[in-house]
Amino acid sequence: MEYMMENMTWPEVKQARDEKRPLIFIVGSIEQHGPHLPICTDMAIPTEVAKKVAQKVGGIVAPVIPYGYRSKPRSGGGEKFVGTFSLSGETLIHLTKDLIKAYIQKGFSKIFVLDWHVENVEFINEGLTLAIEETEEYEKKIIVVDNPNGLVDQSILDEMFEGDFPGWDREHAAIFETSMMLYLCPELVREDKIISDESPNYYPYDILPPPDDIVPESGVLWHAAKASKIKGEKAAESMAEALAKVIEKELK
Amino acid sequence: MEYMMENMTWPEVKQARDEKRPLIFIVGSIEQHGPHLPICTDMAIPTEVAKKVAQKVGGIVAPVIPYGYRSKPRSGGGEKFVGTFSLSGETLIHLTKDLIKAYIQKGFSKIFVLDWHVENVEFINEGLTLAIEETEEYEKKIIVVDNPNGLVDQSILDEMFEGDFPGWDREHAAIFETSMMLYLCPELVREDKIISDESPNYYPYDILPPPDDIVPESGVLWHAAKASKIKGEKAAESMAEALAKVIEKELK
Amino acid sequence: MEYMMENMTWPEVKQARDEKRPLIFIVGSIEQHGPHLPICTDMAIPTEVAKKVAQKVGGIVAPVIPYGYRSKPRSGGGEKFVGTFSLSGETLIHLTKDLIKAYIQKGFSKIFVLDWHVENVEFINEGLTLAIEETEEYEKKIIVVDNPNGLVDQSILDEMFEGDFPGWDREHAAIFETSMMLYLCPELVREDKIISDESPNYYPYDILPPPDDIVPESGVLWHAAKASKIKGEKAAESMAEALAKVIEKELK
Amino acid sequence: MEYMMENMTWPEVKQARDEKRPLIFIVGSIEQHGPHLPICTDMAIPTEVAKKVAQKVGGIVAPVIPYGYRSKPRSGGGEKFVGTFSLSGETLIHLTKDLIKAYIQKGFSKIFVLDWHVENVEFINEGLTLAIEETEEYEKKIIVVDNPNGLVDQSILDEMFEGDFPGWDREHAAIFETSMMLYLCPELVREDKIISDESPNYYPYDILPPPDDIVPESGVLWHAAKASKIKGEKAAESMAEALAKVIEKELK
Amino acid sequence: MEYMMENMTWPEVKQARDEKRPLIFIVGSIEQHGPHLPICTDMAIPTEVAKKVAQKVGGIVAPVIPYGYRSKPRSGGGEKFVGTFSLSGETLIHLTKDLIKAYIQKGFSKIFVLDWHVENVEFINEGLTLAIEETEEYEKKIIVVDNPNGLVDQSILDEMFEGDFPGWDREHAAIFETSMMLYLCPELVREDKIISDESPNYYPYDILPPPDDIVPESGVLWHAAKASKIKGEKAAESMAEALAKVIEKELK
Amino acid sequence: MEYMMENMTWPEVKQARDEKRPLIFIVGSIEQHGPHLPICTDMAIPTEVAKKVAQKVGGIVAPVIPYGYRSKPRSGGGEKFVGTFSLSGETLIHLTKDLIKAYIQKGFSKIFVLDWHVENVEFINEGLTLAIEETEEYEKKIIVVDNPNGLVDQSILDEMFEGDFPGWDREHAAIFETSMMLYLCPELVREDKIISDESPNYYPYDILPPPDDIVPESGVLWHAAKASKIKGEKAAESMAEALAKVIEKELK
Repeated sequence: MEYMMENMTWPEVKQARDEKRPLIFIVGSIEQHGPHLPICTDMAIPTEVAKKVAQKVGGIVAPVIPYGYRSKPRSGGGEKFVGTFSLSGETLIHLTKDLIKAYIQKGFSKIFVLDWHVENVEFINEGLTLAIEETEEYEKKIIVVDNPNGLVDQSILDEMFEGDFPGWDREHAAIFETSMMLYLCPELVREDKIISDESPNYYPYDILPPPDDIVPESGVLWHAAKASKIKGEKAAESMAEALAKVIEKELK
Repeated sequence: MEYMMENMTWPEVKQARDEKRPLIFIVGSIEQHGPHLPICTDMAIPTEVAKKVAQKVGGIVAPVIPYGYRSKPRSGGGEKFVGTFSLSGETLIHLTKDLIKAYIQKGFSKIFVLDWHVENVEFINEGLTLAIEETEEYEKKIIVVDNPNGLVDQSILDEMFEGDFPGWDREHAAIFETSMMLYLCPELVREDKIISDESPNYYPYDILPPPDDIVPESGVLWHAAKASKIKGEKAAESMAEALAKVIEKELK
Repeated sequence: MEYMMENMTWPEVKQARDEKRPLIFIVGSIEQHGPHLPICTDMAIPTEVAKKVAQKVGGIVAPVIPYGYRSKPRSGGGEKFVGTFSLSGETLIHLTKDLIKAYIQKGFSKIFVLDWHVENVEFINEGLTLAIEETEEYEKKIIVVDNPNGLVDQSILDEMFEGDFPGWDREHAAIFETSMMLYLCPELVREDKIISDESPNYYPYDILPPPDDIVPESGVLWHAAKASKIKGEKAAESMAEALAKVIEKELK
Repeated sequence: MEYMMENMTWPEVKQARDEKRPLIFIVGSIEQHGPHLPICTDMAIPTEVAKKVAQKVGGIVAPVIPYGYRSKPRSGGGEKFVGTFSLSGETLIHLTKDLIKAYIQKGFSKIFVLDWHVENVEFINEGLTLAIEETEEYEKKIIVVDNPNGLVDQSILDEMFEGDFPGWDREHAAIFETSMMLYLCPELVREDKIISDESPNYYPYDILPPPDDIVPESGVLWHAAKASKIKGEKAAESMAEALAKVIEKELK
Repeated sequence: MEYMMENMTWPEVKQARDEKRPLIFIVGSIEQHGPHLPICTDMAIPTEVAKKVAQKVGGIVAPVIPYGYRSKPRSGGGEKFVGTFSLSGETLIHLTKDLIKAYIQKGFSKIFVLDWHVENVEFINEGLTLAIEETEEYEKKIIVVDNPNGLVDQSILDEMFEGDFPGWDREHAAIFETSMMLYLCPELVREDKIISDESPNYYPYDILPPPDDIVPESGVLWHAAKASKIKGEKAAESMAEALAKVIEKELK
Repeated sequence: MEYMMENMTWPEVKQARDEKRPLIFIVGSIEQHGPHLPICTDMAIPTEVAKKVAQKVGGIVAPVIPYGYRSKPRSGGGEKFVGTFSLSGETLIHLTKDLIKAYIQKGFSKIFVLDWHVENVEFINEGLTLAIEETEEYEKKIIVVDNPNGLVDQSILDEMFEGDFPGWDREHAAIFETSMMLYLCPELVREDKIISDESPNYYPYDILPPPDDIVPESGVLWHAAKASKIKGEKAAESMAEALAKVIEKELK
């Protein structure tokens, strides 16, 4: 069975809609992820996870938008890296609104939004709100998971970080993402380039424009060298399992 | 060498920029293409062609936006098909503006825009104009090819249509696109579903909202059955060659 | 009978609406048209043709917006000419949307859009789409003719170009437009300034910002000297006849 | 000498710019003006006055936008009349911004804005402010006259109203406008339809949506029957004289 | 009884809505008001007056937006003063639209808009119009008072200006506003800094960007020294009385 | 010394700018806070804290915008409560952009943004980004604190929650906010209405439109009854101290 909507023909899409298959909607980001991960990491991980989820629940994955909202220094290294190319807030709001409106108007009744790039969340939320308001579709439910990491089994997370969890913000191009990529997209990881770096200062606030000293030159915000494929496998499978359960519970 | 920017790490993107590799920018569309072609056809064809061009000129292909502007009945079957999901005009303008601004600001100096979905063109053009205006970058050239079909060697086109060219508008999910897909993405073509259909009426004007009788139920606007892989190969290679020449001439 | 809505009083407009007279909506452009034609040419020609059409079908011509979308070098000489003053894409979308909404809300049931400036078309189309969506008026038909030249009798076109048709893009301030103006608005043509010029290079793509060598200094893209009043008369009358037939067929 | 820019060729426009001729910019309105005046009255009067001003100061009149901002019941009868078709506030802001930016960028250095439809003023003002901000043109002066009636010689006004001045708000389709039209555009006045009506209630506030009883059915807000061509002549000539003096004083 | 909505709990707001208490909506401005009045004057006066009105009619005052539209030199001194911080036109339109939509959707049926800063009026009006259109709430009335000064008893105004009324435009940081503040917010008036100044030139038109000589350096456009607390008391009480009558008449 | 900018005259504001006093910018929200706290709680708390900070660092508090972005059910109860009135995302972006641009253009060089309503953060961040981009002011620093709670001394937090911390999301109208209000604005707290409620279900995802069972009817998301004035005093003073240190460190 095909799980990627873009590879379907229109009669196949129509059938999927008629069968009320859940639709998984993903917005990525094109953002630096250190010297060892591709800039599409925030698109690649949720897409691969979504395929696993789709297999479990009979869902289909909508064509993925590669780009996301501006990168924040604290959680993604910021806009200064060549390799980070972003959308403004209003563009992301309208992009989401247009597409969700289209999916609603074409009759999809179970929409599941999976976001990996934390900076996207509020703009996607506003786009969804406007799509619901403009279509006056208040009956159907849309589910938004904005921190899928938090759904991974705690014991797996404990094992992954070995007692050294830096907070999700600093978990960028680091243990979790590198492990996931080693398992999900190994051909895109430059294993020889994996390094352990660390954000030199922790700021509990944002500074605009961002100063140069809050992000390591490498773009790796934490110890990527502790990543492993087996850690990624456990986390990815646990996450897919948890997401499938959310869909089964909320979009039945 | 890697030609898809999304698969690169940021230091690789930086190197590509420093080497002044031409950047190929593509906006697709998610649009019905009959019972035999996937809805990503307008993204898949230019992306595959762009890879060939990139190999010839040392270019890189920017992450492709899958969605495009609303489908017109005369050239794409229109918005009534489940399987067609589109952006509004203003969203496409801003999407293009944001990204081209980002590419210019990050120092890319040779930008080449390749569009396959004819409905996109004017909104992309407006986005480019605004990006140039807002960055005040009037020195560097941006090249836009909005009808790459027209660059294919005429003898190949003659051979393809066998004297029965319906105009580019009706060439939707038909001989040219099916041939290209048979060559470029054969795994995505349902060969057993290829049919020959025909727009029943030719209207030299648009009707809004579109009536039901101007588009065949299949979504195929012309005789797809005349397509072949060998026709696709000739056209795709000729097109890539011609596009590479444009880049070499204009973006040296 | 009055055909120009702007010269009517409101009770007369009300009567026209009650009689279901077709409404002809025109967006022009203020754009260089060589040393011999006024910058209002793209407003003057469709307005004069529309008056003839209105007489044939009992229509009324809505107040004409003089300005249009940015001029493209390939088809209008581009924005560098003093004498070309244009709207951005979003302004034209909203202008069209506001006015068509107003016409629909006031009860006009037969709307016919005639466009002469090719750069306007997609933005007008988006404005119409939004007006229909926001008024939820899906029952009434709007007809859009975006290439009225193509409706002229072929034998008249053959005679006009004498075997030397440069494509509609280059037909700017050239044989067709000059002939039309000589017939429709002779007092606005500087006959002593008519020259034959030619776009020096043909580019099958756009270059942004446009280089200086693709548009002749005169702004005339083709051989205006071959124009004549009698050619204009034949073309204008044939076009009006054809447009009237479209209205009678589609907006009955 | 030609005073209407739209009738000029581009070299003539260029010459006018090089000679620093003042540019007069007008936004009209398409609004009910009773049973005796055309709906283009708010475009026709300032255009005719502007021609007189242009002759006095060597100015040129930019192509006039027929439509303006929504009609207010207190000053124009409101939006309920068939015959009133209006722009939203944001559209008028952007329309003004785009065009004034274009005039500034093309080198016009003396811009004079003449507004007749009082509802337009603040949106035009915002458009001008944004045009200045976006072009960073802070050196050149733009003059805006938003109540040209107030510049008419007081003795002429006294004579016109015969001691019975209703305030400018209610002076709609009434003595002043009818007199002006009788002098400036007599062929557009239905003299047999001139009536004297009166807004039945005076509200020193606005009510939204407007109730039915604050505007006479005729759309005439005051005693049009007191109008005369000779009154119009005196007012129009006095106004043109006063406007010319403003231009000569401020835009030298 | 509480009259300021912001100090209520949500059950109290719900009760106020259920009791159909009139809602008073105010947009202020942060604008220079000479050396003796605070920059919040345009928010403070209508808020204090609104409290009095609320007490008379059982109304509640919605949370007040401190900022308003750009200051005009003729009526507020303009944007050059440090101490004047303003919103653009579109922001004010959307701010008003969002909030009025929210009040309508939450069931408030009697909305009364009180504006003090004259530059705000048209943008508020557009926001109200859009809120009504988007909620399709055409049954309930919204009342807008845009010149509350005009409702003060004429004899009080005569006494206040002592035959020397400069027009409302120049009445900025002058007799009326200073008197009102002396009565309503005496703790915010620097009595020792009250001066009498005067706009040196009267221009019956606007100049953009504004020249330096049309506004006194002090920011006081007229003779503030003639102000007194007793004048303020009479005017404020008369105004509150008149506004209460409007509410009782129109929003019963 | 005056710390609230709105109460200053313009010469006093000018002096504050010349003395480079830090400017504290606050966006609030008008949102239900249970039966015991006023709907202005998210404006009142940061304003009172900001006054304390201003006293410590010689800062001034800019006029506070009462309204904020739409309330989320998980952290504020959502939009269904009468008493919650919100701005759309784009309005908040533009509101922030306009005002920060104005503050930058008027010469304020030390801008400190304090946000209490978590839903505001990303839209404020986008507004700041656009203000910096449009003013091209890249030299001066803007500091944004979006979780001031997190700056409170940990021992005070431990004491406050007594080992029962529900996460900041559920800390709405609960222990922390009630304690702060009891200390900072005791006259606005209905002490007899303080109750202990609890969000019945914890969802690690959002559901749109929100179901009825995730928010208690009271609007209190956690045990408000554990609040006390002394807890509020300790937290407020610790927070003000910490914020002052951030300003002293970053905006020297």
